[in-house]
Amino acid sequence: MSYSLGHNRYGKSRIRLVTVRRGPQRHHLRDLTVDVALEGDFEAAHTAGDNANVVATDTMKNTVYALARDRFTGSAEAFGLELARHFAAHPSVSRAAVDIAEHRWRPIHLEGGDAPDAFLRRGDMTRLAAVSVTDDGGVSVEAGIDDLTVMKTTKSAFGGFDRDRFTTLPEVEDRLMATKVRATWGYRSDLAASGALDFDAAWTRAEETLLHSLAEHFSPSVQASIWIMAAAMMDAEGSIDWVRMVLPNLHHWTVDLSPFGLDNPGEVFVATTAPHGLIDATVHRRS
Amino acid sequence: MSYSLGHNRYGKSRIRLVTVRRGPQRHHLRDLTVDVALEGDFEAAHTAGDNANVVATDTMKNTVYALARDRFTGSAEAFGLELARHFAAHPSVSRAAVDIAEHRWRPIHLEGGDAPDAFLRRGDMTRLAAVSVTDDGGVSVEAGIDDLTVMKTTKSAFGGFDRDRFTTLPEVEDRLMATKVRATWGYRSDLAASGALDFDAAWTRAEETLLHSLAEHFSPSVQASIWIMAAAMMDAEGSIDWVRMVLPNLHHWTVDLSPFGLDNPGEVFVATTAPHGLIDATVHRRS
Amino acid sequence: MSYSLGHNRYGKSRIRLVTVRRGPQRHHLRDLTVDVALEGDFEAAHTAGDNANVVATDTMKNTVYALARDRFTGSAEAFGLELARHFAAHPSVSRAAVDIAEHRWRPIHLEGGDAPDAFLRRGDMTRLAAVSVTDDGGVSVEAGIDDLTVMKTTKSAFGGFDRDRFTTLPEVEDRLMATKVRATWGYRSDLAASGALDFDAAWTRAEETLLHSLAEHFSPSVQASIWIMAAAMMDAEGSIDWVRMVLPNLHHWTVDLSPFGLDNPGEVFVATTAPHGLIDATVHRRS
Amino acid sequence: MSYSLGHNRYGKSRIRLVTVRRGPQRHHLRDLTVDVALEGDFEAAHTAGDNANVVATDTMKNTVYALARDRFTGSAEAFGLELARHFAAHPSVSRAAVDIAEHRWRPIHLEGGDAPDAFLRRGDMTRLAAVSVTDDGGVSVEAGIDDLTVMKTTKSAFGGFDRDRFTTLPEVEDRLMATKVRATWGYRSDLAASGALDFDAAWTRAEETLLHSLAEHFSPSVQASIWIMAAAMMDAEGSIDWVRMVLPNLHHWTVDLSPFGLDNPGEVFVATTAPHGLIDATVHRRS
Repeated sequence: MSYSLGHNRYGKSRIRLVTVRRGPQRHHLRDLTVDVALEGDFEAAHTAGDNANVVATDTMKNTVYALARDRFTGSAEAFGLELARHFAAHPSVSRAAVDIAEHRWRPIHLEGGDAPDAFLRRGDMTRLAAVSVTDDGGVSVEAGIDDLTVMKTTKSAFGGFDRDRFTTLPEVEDRLMATKVRATWGYRSDLAASGALDFDAAWTRAEETLLHSLAEHFSPSVQASIWIMAAAMMDAEGSIDWVRMVLPNLHHWTVDLSPFGLDNPGEVFVATTAPHGLIDATVHRRS
Repeated sequence: MSYSLGHNRYGKSRIRLVTVRRGPQRHHLRDLTVDVALEGDFEAAHTAGDNANVVATDTMKNTVYALARDRFTGSAEAFGLELARHFAAHPSVSRAAVDIAEHRWRPIHLEGGDAPDAFLRRGDMTRLAAVSVTDDGGVSVEAGIDDLTVMKTTKSAFGGFDRDRFTTLPEVEDRLMATKVRATWGYRSDLAASGALDFDAAWTRAEETLLHSLAEHFSPSVQASIWIMAAAMMDAEGSIDWVRMVLPNLHHWTVDLSPFGLDNPGEVFVATTAPHGLIDATVHRRS
Repeated sequence: MSYSLGHNRYGKSRIRLVTVRRGPQRHHLRDLTVDVALEGDFEAAHTAGDNANVVATDTMKNTVYALARDRFTGSAEAFGLELARHFAAHPSVSRAAVDIAEHRWRPIHLEGGDAPDAFLRRGDMTRLAAVSVTDDGGVSVEAGIDDLTVMKTTKSAFGGFDRDRFTTLPEVEDRLMATKVRATWGYRSDLAASGALDFDAAWTRAEETLLHSLAEHFSPSVQASIWIMAAAMMDAEGSIDWVRMVLPNLHHWTVDLSPFGLDNPGEVFVATTAPHGLIDATVHRRS
Repeated sequence: MSYSLGHNRYGKSRIRLVTVRRGPQRHHLRDLTVDVALEGDFEAAHTAGDNANVVATDTMKNTVYALARDRFTGSAEAFGLELARHFAAHPSVSRAAVDIAEHRWRPIHLEGGDAPDAFLRRGDMTRLAAVSVTDDGGVSVEAGIDDLTVMKTTKSAFGGFDRDRFTTLPEVEDRLMATKVRATWGYRSDLAASGALDFDAAWTRAEETLLHSLAEHFSPSVQASIWIMAAAMMDAEGSIDWVRMVLPNLHHWTVDLSPFGLDNPGEVFVATTAPHGLIDATVHRRS
């Protein structure tokens, strides 16, 4: 044969799962988008049209809903572990990956307190969980934040950069810095696998630290901001081994109002999305 | 001539305006998408290629940024009025319409209080303002809410509906009701034009009432929910003449887990977006 | 009662229908997104929670699929008429509207001719049909084109426009003109209702004329282009009563390369989508 | 220091470049979205706020427009090589990556032939090119196709797959298979670097073969389809070393019309996008 099968994986994406747990005082609403992907002994499916080893992606979808009935009672990470362990136990599977995006809702506030059974989708960020389990029991758990749009209206500069014949950007000591954060991080495998780690508490510490650090540090560049925020997150949460951030630099340009006889001391901006800078860096804890 | 020009309007859309007001204690961040559209004496531009009466849409964009420098200090509605009055004063314009979507940000919370210069985009809803001014001084001000995704996990039913040979939907006494609210409302013209109306306070009362009503009422249908919520909003805010809501019914189907030997007492759902019901109704205050 | 019900309509949106007709020589693939909306005697549903007159939107969806089985054999307009007449016959309905977007596919080209059973989604434009039928037998049929992105690389100018203190745009005798066409048009009601009109042939004539006219005319403004193209379409197709176009002006800015010692004689452009001009005009045939 | 910098890259994304070459007979329109990303000696930018080695992303954007003036005269791959070699020559850069999506336009057809200066965006697929150059002269050139939506209306089956207690999917001998193709492939490095490879001809051969193979083969699964199509592409184009495809399985469900007394012999389908299967596999040429 002239060709060989290389890296391959397959699964079901965008499984939309909503659960309502109906407690005596109030309902609890959860809203997930789940992606399942499997690696394993699928060579014959590709090269010989033999599906004997293939778990149908429709079965994956059914499994997500069925396991949600009783086992989705805690964090997205814990549910992801249940799912990934289930799929990894299949004889043809060598590695099962479960990626979860959790869409966050909050109760509607009423005068006497939170409504028990009416909710509003928050929309400020998405919580991510990415779990994989291998057939030899290896476990990887990552968590993250996506679609968190933030802005620093000062304490951001960009200067001292390289200049060549195509450089026209002036150096600035004070600019707006806006980005849509995608941050992911990995937990220590032993802790993640043991069940000893409180994934919700760890996520909350990481998220709060990210926001505090974002607000408080002086940023000489997006690159430096990633370093500073990632380090702060690992300082705050010892179970995190590494943090990756992929940050677009959503430029806000100061509008030149001088043609209209007006000054513009950093007050009026045009917001843009294209083109945008894109900074991608991972920071590791030294072992 | 065989043809005649009918309804026509033109303008600039998606003008992205961000302002930062730098107070001594804290910064104030505003983020608008502005659309401007003009009607008037533009027949010659269409039929004769004569642009003498045409305000270039580029000029509209410049005007939005220039007027924002000093005059965008209050509500989106008030800024819309400034803009619409400016454009309506042009000799060729008979009606100027300014539509604004305000994207809401909040300060990042720190331990000692809100950050003075770091913000997070809320994402839970967009505030709308739609202003139009005619060359005879007529003023219309509408406000609204868009992209507010909400869910009632009980107190929603749908039964007693018509059945024909294509009907398979069972009646249900208890269902999830989820929707992405687009609600707009009109203020009394005299109040809106006078400057006496506090647009921010009115919007907040309308929004809070919408949410409270949504949480508290029993819904026999989306149609009835619109009636109930719109009436509550007009009860609470006397300056509102009418309320329109366009509500998709974002169906959440109870998953049949019986093939897997499991019950599902209203706990596990599949969220869908297509197809969806779409209910559009306007409720008027009787004069 | 303090409030009254104003304009209202409801229905099912985004019904995704694909049909495959399996002829002896080749398959015929059709792909529609259908929206149904009804007006009628639905006051009690809103004000009294009484659903007796309500056709469930789920029933509408079922009806679309069921009628597609035997009656979707010709144009989208003809199928829309079947559907709208079906719904308008319901005792509580005064007006039924069916909006259809047809996504166009073509056979994959093979060396020996078109593949009989493999297709490629064209993506160059969407065909629109909008039909409404009233309970007194009134019929309205509109057709259209959406998402047709086109560009003229010359024969477009913009000059002689109004200048005020906020105007900075220079006049240009030669510019790129790019837009994403949304054009809709209305057929003479008597023809549309009679069954005598060949909707496919009329649509094709309108579409071809729009494209030819777009390519050939000199444009002094987007406004003038709408007038010229709409008139050409009505010249070519006598069954059309009016044409409406909503055209964004997707600006392409000539890049200033002089800082790099380069000229730019209309060769290098930055494409933008926000902000954009938006020109909306309707041209009527004089009766 | 407790932390170390891991993998990092940064650049400018979504640079929107349009060029018009004005030949004596006709204009030539090109439309690219370009992303530039650099790796190199950027540690100090992250850890010390020292930007001395940093090429500003604004400079990258300027460079794309400036080099487009004279050097974007052939394929997207060749232009990507120009850009990547330019950036890789910077002393702080170890690897420069340029990703290009080319949006395809065609002249509008007139009766006498193609319009010389009016164009229509095709929308049927996007052409991809991904080039990287390292500071030691290493070159990688990949090409691809994105957003190509296709359907086989027969010659697709799915059976013989694994069944467990969560499996409800029936085996089918004849189904619709629809997908939105993302295919990428790598050219032999020596050929790609030498300038001897005609990137346009190679892309066209790969694209045509993909489509022909898609139309002609019998598919026992999406996995097998990838294998078959990838092999055909490498058979046809000897410069390709590997092909990767990421194919969503866009399910089209046969509608059960039996409640309405109708059969449905594979004629009426509901098109869905969520959830969808997702099959990702790479096929290599054996060396």
